[in-house]
Amino acid sequence: MTSADDTRTPAPVAPLLSGLDGRLPGLRTLYEDLHAHPELSFQEVRTAGVVAARLREQGWEVTEGVAGTGVVGVLTAGEGPVVLLRADMDGLPVKEETGLPYTSGRTAVGSDGEEVPVMHACGHDMHVTCLLGATAQLAANRKAWRGTVVAVFQPAEEVGGAPAMIEDGFRERFPRPEVCLGQHVAPAPVGFVGTRPGPLMAASDSLRVRLFGRGGHGSMPESTVDPVVLAAAVVLRLQTVVSREVGAAQAAVVTVGAIHGGTKENIIPDMVELKVNIRSTTPAVRERVLAAVERIIRAEAAASGAPREPEITELNSFPVTVNDHAATATVRSALVAALGEGRVFTLPRPLIGSEDFGAFGTALEVPSVFWHFGGADPALFAGLDPDALLEDGIPPTIPANHSALFAPLPGPAIEVGVTALLAAAAQWLTGTAEVNRRA
Amino acid sequence: MTSADDTRTPAPVAPLLSGLDGRLPGLRTLYEDLHAHPELSFQEVRTAGVVAARLREQGWEVTEGVAGTGVVGVLTAGEGPVVLLRADMDGLPVKEETGLPYTSGRTAVGSDGEEVPVMHACGHDMHVTCLLGATAQLAANRKAWRGTVVAVFQPAEEVGGAPAMIEDGFRERFPRPEVCLGQHVAPAPVGFVGTRPGPLMAASDSLRVRLFGRGGHGSMPESTVDPVVLAAAVVLRLQTVVSREVGAAQAAVVTVGAIHGGTKENIIPDMVELKVNIRSTTPAVRERVLAAVERIIRAEAAASGAPREPEITELNSFPVTVNDHAATATVRSALVAALGEGRVFTLPRPLIGSEDFGAFGTALEVPSVFWHFGGADPALFAGLDPDALLEDGIPPTIPANHSALFAPLPGPAIEVGVTALLAAAAQWLTGTAEVNRRA
Amino acid sequence: MTSADDTRTPAPVAPLLSGLDGRLPGLRTLYEDLHAHPELSFQEVRTAGVVAARLREQGWEVTEGVAGTGVVGVLTAGEGPVVLLRADMDGLPVKEETGLPYTSGRTAVGSDGEEVPVMHACGHDMHVTCLLGATAQLAANRKAWRGTVVAVFQPAEEVGGAPAMIEDGFRERFPRPEVCLGQHVAPAPVGFVGTRPGPLMAASDSLRVRLFGRGGHGSMPESTVDPVVLAAAVVLRLQTVVSREVGAAQAAVVTVGAIHGGTKENIIPDMVELKVNIRSTTPAVRERVLAAVERIIRAEAAASGAPREPEITELNSFPVTVNDHAATATVRSALVAALGEGRVFTLPRPLIGSEDFGAFGTALEVPSVFWHFGGADPALFAGLDPDALLEDGIPPTIPANHSALFAPLPGPAIEVGVTALLAAAAQWLTGTAEVNRRA
Amino acid sequence: MTSADDTRTPAPVAPLLSGLDGRLPGLRTLYEDLHAHPELSFQEVRTAGVVAARLREQGWEVTEGVAGTGVVGVLTAGEGPVVLLRADMDGLPVKEETGLPYTSGRTAVGSDGEEVPVMHACGHDMHVTCLLGATAQLAANRKAWRGTVVAVFQPAEEVGGAPAMIEDGFRERFPRPEVCLGQHVAPAPVGFVGTRPGPLMAASDSLRVRLFGRGGHGSMPESTVDPVVLAAAVVLRLQTVVSREVGAAQAAVVTVGAIHGGTKENIIPDMVELKVNIRSTTPAVRERVLAAVERIIRAEAAASGAPREPEITELNSFPVTVNDHAATATVRSALVAALGEGRVFTLPRPLIGSEDFGAFGTALEVPSVFWHFGGADPALFAGLDPDALLEDGIPPTIPANHSALFAPLPGPAIEVGVTALLAAAAQWLTGTAEVNRRA
Repeated sequence: MTSADDTRTPAPVAPLLSGLDGRLPGLRTLYEDLHAHPELSFQEVRTAGVVAARLREQGWEVTEGVAGTGVVGVLTAGEGPVVLLRADMDGLPVKEETGLPYTSGRTAVGSDGEEVPVMHACGHDMHVTCLLGATAQLAANRKAWRGTVVAVFQPAEEVGGAPAMIEDGFRERFPRPEVCLGQHVAPAPVGFVGTRPGPLMAASDSLRVRLFGRGGHGSMPESTVDPVVLAAAVVLRLQTVVSREVGAAQAAVVTVGAIHGGTKENIIPDMVELKVNIRSTTPAVRERVLAAVERIIRAEAAASGAPREPEITELNSFPVTVNDHAATATVRSALVAALGEGRVFTLPRPLIGSEDFGAFGTALEVPSVFWHFGGADPALFAGLDPDALLEDGIPPTIPANHSALFAPLPGPAIEVGVTALLAAAAQWLTGTAEVNRRA
Repeated sequence: MTSADDTRTPAPVAPLLSGLDGRLPGLRTLYEDLHAHPELSFQEVRTAGVVAARLREQGWEVTEGVAGTGVVGVLTAGEGPVVLLRADMDGLPVKEETGLPYTSGRTAVGSDGEEVPVMHACGHDMHVTCLLGATAQLAANRKAWRGTVVAVFQPAEEVGGAPAMIEDGFRERFPRPEVCLGQHVAPAPVGFVGTRPGPLMAASDSLRVRLFGRGGHGSMPESTVDPVVLAAAVVLRLQTVVSREVGAAQAAVVTVGAIHGGTKENIIPDMVELKVNIRSTTPAVRERVLAAVERIIRAEAAASGAPREPEITELNSFPVTVNDHAATATVRSALVAALGEGRVFTLPRPLIGSEDFGAFGTALEVPSVFWHFGGADPALFAGLDPDALLEDGIPPTIPANHSALFAPLPGPAIEVGVTALLAAAAQWLTGTAEVNRRA
Repeated sequence: MTSADDTRTPAPVAPLLSGLDGRLPGLRTLYEDLHAHPELSFQEVRTAGVVAARLREQGWEVTEGVAGTGVVGVLTAGEGPVVLLRADMDGLPVKEETGLPYTSGRTAVGSDGEEVPVMHACGHDMHVTCLLGATAQLAANRKAWRGTVVAVFQPAEEVGGAPAMIEDGFRERFPRPEVCLGQHVAPAPVGFVGTRPGPLMAASDSLRVRLFGRGGHGSMPESTVDPVVLAAAVVLRLQTVVSREVGAAQAAVVTVGAIHGGTKENIIPDMVELKVNIRSTTPAVRERVLAAVERIIRAEAAASGAPREPEITELNSFPVTVNDHAATATVRSALVAALGEGRVFTLPRPLIGSEDFGAFGTALEVPSVFWHFGGADPALFAGLDPDALLEDGIPPTIPANHSALFAPLPGPAIEVGVTALLAAAAQWLTGTAEVNRRA
Repeated sequence: MTSADDTRTPAPVAPLLSGLDGRLPGLRTLYEDLHAHPELSFQEVRTAGVVAARLREQGWEVTEGVAGTGVVGVLTAGEGPVVLLRADMDGLPVKEETGLPYTSGRTAVGSDGEEVPVMHACGHDMHVTCLLGATAQLAANRKAWRGTVVAVFQPAEEVGGAPAMIEDGFRERFPRPEVCLGQHVAPAPVGFVGTRPGPLMAASDSLRVRLFGRGGHGSMPESTVDPVVLAAAVVLRLQTVVSREVGAAQAAVVTVGAIHGGTKENIIPDMVELKVNIRSTTPAVRERVLAAVERIIRAEAAASGAPREPEITELNSFPVTVNDHAATATVRSALVAALGEGRVFTLPRPLIGSEDFGAFGTALEVPSVFWHFGGADPALFAGLDPDALLEDGIPPTIPANHSALFAPLPGPAIEVGVTALLAAAAQWLTGTAEVNRRA
């Protein structure tokens, strides 16, 4: 409840921040190195090596190779709550155009066997840097807190590395946390953070749909079932899912990103293949939208008299990232205390982007909290109304995640990112028993 | 088979035509009187009265009141074949704009209770006139033929008077013919006739379709099932029946002539109603098209998640008018003999107009032959290529049936119409036994 | 900014509430009387009479007949800020099904000349009651405040009575306020209020669209331009406005509430008429959606080769109801002080319903604030998660505005409504100079 | 006019047929050799070699290399009319499945660089065989006729070899004929031939259509113009061309044989490409359909607000194959005389298949006549109604042209094919002056 402001006294984060200033130049160098060496999902070998080495230097117990390239560090400071902090490590097949001194010029072989450029276009380099900064602070200030921290450096966020870590025995292999905390750098002004209780980021479900007809000569459609016409009817009808079956107060997106069928103009093919991506911001909407998509696909095939049921195959599925209400209030008050009231925003609605962070909280059956922190030059926002930004979102003139121009300002962003992680964690690691209990 | 020219010697029609010249002025007066007094379907009281009186004067045995306003005359000239000749009597709710001296200014109360203008816009007045001319000739030249003629003056061709006469016991009440003959005046040059073996005129099936949704406030479509969107999807998908399921060598038309749903812009209604008309030119195409229309309607309702199955109600149904191959060859040779080779055309394909004449042959299980005879001023066709006319059809500049300007040239058209009826009938009434047997 | 909690000390409302308890029974009787006597938009003669009489009894200066049935009261308590308080008065053409003792059984002649049932199905009776309660309190406690109150009893909110009052010289005839305040009873638990800075309620634009084709016989579509197919294409294509042109973070609805064309199944009509309602929650989205709707309608007519441009006529237009940020913070703190922190919610996003209240602030060029107050039995919400309610909205099981079952609990709702009006107004009428200045 | 039977006495073909019986076994061997050695379009090197050698042996003046692999023979028998006889030579990229002793097992490199199987699946081997039989008869019976014969062995009928020969100077290099004659083997019973005056075979036009949008992230369609939705709207709207803009008496087909756009489900692409094939059976319908297709494509792009006009590129174009009316009557009477009345059919309507033969008559500005002759085992037609065959077309159970099972019965088909060519040519080469003049 955004109206029920949290009045609990935030736990003191100051002791955990001790020495951070001196550490920032080194973190910036680390960031530039990571940025210059992006790796594709599940190929984060170099990154994982850097992470593991740093953690070991800091004194963490390190497990490598979780879900391939994942790294997990564990550090204990006596009896106390267990807190999970997570960063993701993978880059994207994007050709960097930032012109930065530490621009990536790397390429890699993608999942389809072709060589592609690689760029840290989603800021996961920043996430790794901030978490390594936080782990260093926690190790250096071990007396200032009690409990256990599990630092998760996850591979392959873009394609589902979090569930892969779960499937690789995460629950059995590492201490069970009381809360999972994570963050993402965003195209908001550096210095600001935003979050919200409840749904924060959208679910994403991807489907491959094969629509079957019966091919034949293009001049004799009457002896065929034309799958191109069927596909067109499906695509148009799918537009009604968002326009008619999702309320204005809810958000969903149904995109047919690819459509392929046929070879020659005068031959009606046997099949057309669609690739569909579906976003939704609450579990109820997700369920309704997925059901409507399937209902429409099957009914349109029936309308065409298709000789075979469509094949609907799940390509991947990310659930809604849901922030626990009580834990979010706890984190929010910590962020307010650490950054200042005016720098902590409650997002009015879920973002349409997706994230696999929620897999940890779901699988471990514990609350989780995720937040965004700004990485963009505040000068870019000069003259923009902050209220309108909250209402209308970031304008397209500001390079956003996945853009070839995405370039957080490392200096101040790293400081905010490390501080936010430590402030949030401190609520459990240094707070009173009351704070640590779920409401 | 158009290639298998009929080589049988036509029966001599000349004796049956004896005295026709003197009768023509009276027939023209009759035509003008009928034209000036059109009556709507099943309201042909005055017309039926004129018909019955004339037939009695001529010496025919007359039955009135068959299917309401139908009149049947029977005349026998000794032992011999029975031939059925049919004319239809009803006018249309059209406001005449011909400006003829005998223009109709009449109105009547239509089936929905409203007063409408009435016009003989489809030439049924010409059909009645020609058949009364033929019956007069047959009565006057009774020694020139042998057998029995059943002259049918049918009501309500526009809405299915032929099946109504069958249902009124036609088969039991009148002699069973060996052949049913009928004709229609057409916007072709007067003096010419056209027919074809096999399908001659299209089937017409009309449906009322009720598509059910679940209404609600226009701002909350997610709590409704929007029948307007469903109706739109149905209308667009129905286009694929003709474009994909009917071969280029076949012909069909699917028209949604009416669509009605809703009252206010911000209230989603519960139901949208469509009225659909379907034309097809062979029984196989008809069956396929009707099945496809129903398949699409039901599947689109499923695509919408409709709370109730659509209601599909037949409004009316006319089958394909099919000319018997052998009997058509027999009639064709008679028409060639009577009118000249160059004036008898074999139509390259069925016409898309519909006709209920076929109900007689179907119900009585005997062959039937229907033909068209021109009523239009040949001057209108000056400069047009007759081959192109056959290929492309009558140009829209020439007033066609159902037009407010439809105005056959009575003089010559009546002569051709009477002659054609007598020539065709003579093949059975004056020919040899061979001619009368089906091939 | 929801994060920037208002820290200004709320003005003391207590003196304005003095004597309210004793007034409540009379207000309840008034409410039941108004509920039993609903009147359609611009027909609020009896209601206006009751209002004017009460205001005069209370000592207000009363102007009647503003925009037909509107009533404006003015009361001054010395030098000070001017505050506008507004209530709307009209009922709806709905047949009441509440079964309450004071159920309306009234009918009236609607704008289309037909007799319709009338019901206060949107709670405007509650709005009038609460404002008359507030005006009574203000008059009775005139020493407790300074300034001038303009009490607006507006006709015809459902069809745009607010702009009608503006057009009737409101600006020139009455004191110009510093703030406009208004409220609406909602299907939320009684005792709770909700509002938000920025867009609160959606814009609503209604269009009549005439799509022109060229009619003809249903069996000859090639000589026509079929407006039914055109209309279907328009309806389906309009779905893409919301599905493709409105971001997930924004909200819009495009509903085709009515579609009408044609009479008979075998006649292709000349025209199909649509009625379209468009909701949008920010001015930018509104502009984009309206442009897209027009673009699609015109392009689809071009796709059909329509012989005439579509006719697009505005039926009515309500802008987005936008709450001034600073004034909303001011009101919010007053509501928190008067009702308790836990009873004042910040709505996470605009509501999709529309309201013409914004016309006052826009025309007078002053900030305005609107809020909702619950009227529903809290028992109906037992077991529901309040956070989920904010996220997902009121469940359809609870009778909402415009429902035939809409029935606020008068007792407690009136008390909350009067209190909220007085508390909000007190921020200007009893506060310090600082409070009264816009941030 | 099919009704105006030709009554001119056919020219005596008998002398031209002298010796044909003895030649048939050799023609059959030739046919089997050609069938076993099919070559793709414009690759007919071996076939052209066989043709040229045979023509030279027979005494014809031979030109090779016309349009690459085309061969033209000229033979003169004194002063007299010039007649062009044409056969096409190319095979198809089809894997033969006939199981015949002379089955093709050949492959070749197709136009896209890939190796493909090759088969004479369209009977062009039969056409070459029959024309070489006719040229042999003409050479052997040179005293039985007067005039000049131009025997054209055309390459690449499947992709437009006829216009290629015209462009290679055909008109200037060879005698200008008075008539062009050609034939095609068809899946009709061997022994039967069919033709019709006017349009005989359909025009075929192929287009590549590029629909441009503006790509972007699949979760943010509002910042894109989605070309997948645009393509779907185009495909569905194109269905209305045939369903609404082509009369039931006319024939056209619009097929979208290929649709391709996008790569990933969550990336909206910039472009979708369609390949469209359009069939039409009269020049007027062709023009209307092509215009409607372009109109719809452009308007739908406008409906989407596309950032760039669609690109519409012609891939290939074959005109309607039109038989001259008078020359067709002349040929028909010759075929009737040579084969018997009952074996010569007038096709009721144009076929939807296409042919480039018309390019000769059009370019040379002389009448042309094309006919089909049956190649199928009559046993396959046992029990089928010949009238229904004319009305409904060849049933799909009988292997048709382009099928991997297409296998004319060589023996009787060759005799009919040679006889038909000679009989038709004889009308000009042995007839009276009257016959040779156009009506």
